[in-house]
Amino acid sequence: MVGRFISFEGTEGVGKTTAIEQLCLQLEKNGIHYLRTREPGGSPFAERLRDILLDPATEIEDDTELLLLFAARCDHMQQVILPALQRGTWVVCDRFTDSTIAYQGFGRGHGDQVMLTKIETLIEQFVTQLPELTLWLDLPVAEGMARANKRSAADRFEQQAMAFFTWVHTGFSQLASSHPERIQRIDASGSTDEVSARIWQAVVDRFDVE
Amino acid sequence: MVGRFISFEGTEGVGKTTAIEQLCLQLEKNGIHYLRTREPGGSPFAERLRDILLDPATEIEDDTELLLLFAARCDHMQQVILPALQRGTWVVCDRFTDSTIAYQGFGRGHGDQVMLTKIETLIEQFVTQLPELTLWLDLPVAEGMARANKRSAADRFEQQAMAFFTWVHTGFSQLASSHPERIQRIDASGSTDEVSARIWQAVVDRFDVE
Repeated sequence: MVGRFISFEGTEGVGKTTAIEQLCLQLEKNGIHYLRTREPGGSPFAERLRDILLDPATEIEDDTELLLLFAARCDHMQQVILPALQRGTWVVCDRFTDSTIAYQGFGRGHGDQVMLTKIETLIEQFVTQLPELTLWLDLPVAEGMARANKRSAADRFEQQAMAFFTWVHTGFSQLASSHPERIQRIDASGSTDEVSARIWQAVVDRFDVE
Repeated sequence: MVGRFISFEGTEGVGKTTAIEQLCLQLEKNGIHYLRTREPGGSPFAERLRDILLDPATEIEDDTELLLLFAARCDHMQQVILPALQRGTWVVCDRFTDSTIAYQGFGRGHGDQVMLTKIETLIEQFVTQLPELTLWLDLPVAEGMARANKRSAADRFEQQAMAFFTWVHTGFSQLASSHPERIQRIDASGSTDEVSARIWQAVVDRFDVE
């Protein structure tokens, strides 16, 4: 038996952390071994790169950032994700390739074709394992921003403005349209229980659990 | 007036450092402003990545290393090389893209086509400025190794064996055949003065100095 690879995506404040916790609880209840991880980071070496990437003092150009993100992703994939899947453990990952397209390609690059081609080339050449199911938590951008601003530390990505997240949202939306077989849009409004129920239903539908 | 971009390449012990010093002296004598730099590294951020890359304790897979090398290269190119060329300064760089092809593609990858395609894709997508003249210092591998072993600290790359450098040499040799318009083979045997004279002649022929 091989593990399943699930990623969570969404703009700031949509409730990813809580949703991931809830899914992990459900997996546990169902006797499914899982590994919870995140990007950028997820392996010791990739977490070192994460510290550099999210440090507000880091001043690097878009291309440099992109290559660092994929260096971190390669290490995470090879050291953590692939071994887990091979031993039958499910992998629940907070952000993966779609975030790069949405944040760097749309948020930063405004959907610029040159930037998108670079990202797609990196995915094609270096990412040997895509998620089987991507849960895109969708909420109006203003609502997510309002929720996120209640939290304390603003890292380098979170310091960006509303216009930025509107672009990011467009990115996720276009990705969901292009990859309906993999990306499932989840309505992230309502209570924790409501969102969790939607997510669990999507997982059950996709993987035939229970 | 725009600066000229010259890179030096070669396996260990061929005398790159001395040759670069000598060329810089010649440029100075001729009143040419130059910047001497190196890869991996060459900018503050890329030097941070260099420390990680050359640390013998760093255990990363080939793909991760490749992406880090290009992240460092992007930063070096954008922060240091391009601005220098634009203000009319010549750039003399110890190693550039050819070293990645020779070391990662041939030395590590034994000329594996998948690895070479990855490297070529990264060059195509991310390297906007190739050297105009590449001086490949060529010496039989055994001779270079014998010279290199007289030096003290063996870094992560230098710890590799003879077979490895034979592959690297094959890489440089194939590159020189494929890019005769850019890569000039320099016979690195003989005295410092002899090698320097060959290099200066190559520069004069290419750029019409004096």
